[in-house]
Amino acid sequence: MKILVLNPAITQEHKDRIAASAAKHNAELAFAASEAEIPEGFEEPDIVYGFGVDIARKSKKLKWLCVPSAGVDFICKPGSFANEDCILTNSSGAYGVSIAEHIIAVSLMMMRCLTVYYSQTLSGKWGAERFHQKSLKDSRITVLGTGDIGTEFAKRAKAFEPAQIIGVCRSGVSRESSFDKVLKVDALDSILPRTDLLVMSLPATSETEDILNRKRIEALPDGAYIVNVGRGSAIDEEALADNLDNGHLGGAALDVFKSEPLPEGCRLWKTDRLLITPHVAGNLTLDHTLDKNVEMFIEDLDNYFEGRDLKYMVDRKKGY
Amino acid sequence: MKILVLNPAITQEHKDRIAASAAKHNAELAFAASEAEIPEGFEEPDIVYGFGVDIARKSKKLKWLCVPSAGVDFICKPGSFANEDCILTNSSGAYGVSIAEHIIAVSLMMMRCLTVYYSQTLSGKWGAERFHQKSLKDSRITVLGTGDIGTEFAKRAKAFEPAQIIGVCRSGVSRESSFDKVLKVDALDSILPRTDLLVMSLPATSETEDILNRKRIEALPDGAYIVNVGRGSAIDEEALADNLDNGHLGGAALDVFKSEPLPEGCRLWKTDRLLITPHVAGNLTLDHTLDKNVEMFIEDLDNYFEGRDLKYMVDRKKGY
Repeated sequence: MKILVLNPAITQEHKDRIAASAAKHNAELAFAASEAEIPEGFEEPDIVYGFGVDIARKSKKLKWLCVPSAGVDFICKPGSFANEDCILTNSSGAYGVSIAEHIIAVSLMMMRCLTVYYSQTLSGKWGAERFHQKSLKDSRITVLGTGDIGTEFAKRAKAFEPAQIIGVCRSGVSRESSFDKVLKVDALDSILPRTDLLVMSLPATSETEDILNRKRIEALPDGAYIVNVGRGSAIDEEALADNLDNGHLGGAALDVFKSEPLPEGCRLWKTDRLLITPHVAGNLTLDHTLDKNVEMFIEDLDNYFEGRDLKYMVDRKKGY
Repeated sequence: MKILVLNPAITQEHKDRIAASAAKHNAELAFAASEAEIPEGFEEPDIVYGFGVDIARKSKKLKWLCVPSAGVDFICKPGSFANEDCILTNSSGAYGVSIAEHIIAVSLMMMRCLTVYYSQTLSGKWGAERFHQKSLKDSRITVLGTGDIGTEFAKRAKAFEPAQIIGVCRSGVSRESSFDKVLKVDALDSILPRTDLLVMSLPATSETEDILNRKRIEALPDGAYIVNVGRGSAIDEEALADNLDNGHLGGAALDVFKSEPLPEGCRLWKTDRLLITPHVAGNLTLDHTLDKNVEMFIEDLDNYFEGRDLKYMVDRKKGY
């Protein structure tokens, strides 16, 4: 068995831990920064941990691909796998802490007008004008997507004493007690008019495409805030921009977009009260995220060799 | 008895509640936006709720001044009161929620490099470079000043799963259980080398002046962050700028300064990794803060007329 690890961010300590697990199961192991630098003899590995997109598309020998991301939309399109039986796992569960911190940060930046004050001080101006601030305290928060990210966010948001935190997901069930209530997706239309802060952490699937459409954006109360950290496909970006420009929404913070990097000249660059970040809510620069990511792969590596079900298995048809 | 309320931010509902309390005690009441617009007959009131600085300095009749701020340094200088027996109360307790949210926001902005990403996107640039992020999770947090602000911050910070939250105050005692430990100020030097995030919420007194001096800033570990929301007098600003410029500190977020507004041409405007906000962490634009502020005054108004001790009494000699 040959294992190829394609992850430029991992440390020597991570490599040692992966090597120890591989040795335990008598597997061969190689590391490379990317698919462009694969060592000889590892062109058709059995297992890849990393963004092995080309290998998956070309090699019928690949049995298991573990991607370090939570989102798998890029590898769930038809033709992504030469071996139709190839197992796909993801690293959903590694990003919750990092992305939850991002959501809190950008929500407060918008609600407290820090986006405005900070942009003023960046240009050397002491902003004397006092803008009306909002607060997480007493806010009605709706979390669309109650997976790892939504859950870690709810835990943290709870400490800010919001009026309520409602989770919304396909099943309508979550084990996380920080949600005051968890509703099924078909309750979304009834909860939006009572939402001051809408947090979206959905995967890109056919069901989530433009789930936040124009009608739903307009159903939010005046002054509501939207944060999207899932996938850009979930929001009608034109409708969002219209409802920021016309003053309906209090603000929006997007870390993900239909097209990334956000194209030059795109209307969103000039949209008022839109806080843009370049897909950085969850990335592997945070030590905790990287540690967890490697730990999850090793956990499934042991499961794989010991014949147990893999824990982070993705349903390639559903796309998550 | 004449009560003068000088608070341009309060709503009609707030006025009605104050009026109801005044009527109960047969007191006369007037409202004005500032000392420049005082109605006839209220030039020498018995009680002022607001920034009645001139009245306090000139009128021997003033018996009680309630300021809507938490800090009272501006009214504790010699000569501030014509009537040496005038009671002074403040509104410490109204700002904790607002300022705690500010501290979390700016800490995460620095740790997650959102200051950099946001300044890039403000200029229309999709920042492709990935900077090393830090996290509140597993951080060692020290809170200098464990009053209302430090306490509300600790409650919220706890949800982010830091390694520890140590409170530091004069008494070494706090009722807030979110602190893992509370130490006396003389333990500051021993705790600073084990502090990743130092939060300062101290009043301006002779004891707190330059409490964070050059030696103490240098004692922090490399990459540590500082947030100051108390008073600017507590930090040696030159030493802070030196330790940001030389790369020792990871960042600093100052909402308060020795001189406000921060003077044009001041070195701090150009200091790297310094997040400047124009004294907005606690202001009366947040509905919760304003409600609490008015509520606290009414509480003490009842105490005053019913002969009880005032709850928000300031020791004018100590300055808090």
